[in-house]
Amino acid sequence: MSLDKELRVVPDFPKPGIEFLDISPLLEDAKLFQQLISSLAEKSQDWNFDKIVAIESRGFILGSALAQAMGKGFVMVRKKGKLPGETVANTYDLEYGTDTIEMLPTSIHKDEKVMILDDVLATGGTAAATCELVEKLGGQIVGCLFFIELSFLKGREKLKFPTEALVIR
Amino acid sequence: MSLDKELRVVPDFPKPGIEFLDISPLLEDAKLFQQLISSLAEKSQDWNFDKIVAIESRGFILGSALAQAMGKGFVMVRKKGKLPGETVANTYDLEYGTDTIEMLPTSIHKDEKVMILDDVLATGGTAAATCELVEKLGGQIVGCLFFIELSFLKGREKLKFPTEALVIR
Repeated sequence: MSLDKELRVVPDFPKPGIEFLDISPLLEDAKLFQQLISSLAEKSQDWNFDKIVAIESRGFILGSALAQAMGKGFVMVRKKGKLPGETVANTYDLEYGTDTIEMLPTSIHKDEKVMILDDVLATGGTAAATCELVEKLGGQIVGCLFFIELSFLKGREKLKFPTEALVIR
Repeated sequence: MSLDKELRVVPDFPKPGIEFLDISPLLEDAKLFQQLISSLAEKSQDWNFDKIVAIESRGFILGSALAQAMGKGFVMVRKKGKLPGETVANTYDLEYGTDTIEMLPTSIHKDEKVMILDDVLATGGTAAATCELVEKLGGQIVGCLFFIELSFLKGREKLKFPTEALVIR
């Protein structure tokens, strides 16, 4: 069964002209969800890492289930102001304006091997900013994994680590 | 090992006077994370359900890993404007003002059995609003599960379904 076919396409979300790929049908069905996580585990099985660094919010869903299935630790990357106490931050450019992501400084140890995970690789801005933050904390990135890659946006070019995706559009 | 002891207490977050319980140390460590999810699975093993309905954003982390571990489907409850296409919404009162949560109308089928899950039960406003939404969609709620219950806030009194928590403070 192709996971690709199970995606729900929602036109004009979050704004006119954008075709949003909704992963909900793959999460709601227990069998499809197991299959999705197994496929992600298979894609990353040759990478040697201890923690999955996942990007808010849909990245949390895939990253957490994958960490559980593979026996890895799970680390959150959140939008500014969501993580408690001292944080490390990285601000990056968007099409209009900037965005800031944060991590806990204690979440990655020096030389720890991590994999970056998100649901969609679009322009690559958030993923690249996440890689920078992880490196700032001394982590070693073994790869970046995505469920969906929107290849026409060339996000992969912003990432200097091995990059894999289950579905490439 | 007590999961309770692994929580990181952050004073004055998100505002002065609030003591925030950070679950990050339990997620970052692969063994603790497995233990946390196993303990949640154990707490809910007597409930017969097909889907876990989890509340954004930390609820996503626990709910997704638990759904994966138990072989259940996973359904998102999100803040207003985050879910694509047609949604069902519920607006509820906060201490000051209101908040609105949304679900996809297709996410729960009539008479489907579901469990509600979030990381923390505080005043119970979001959990109660989630229960209302699930019932509106025709779902049958078998129980509400939380990692942490802040019992002095009496959130449990707002929930009319069996309610369990791993850590009660």
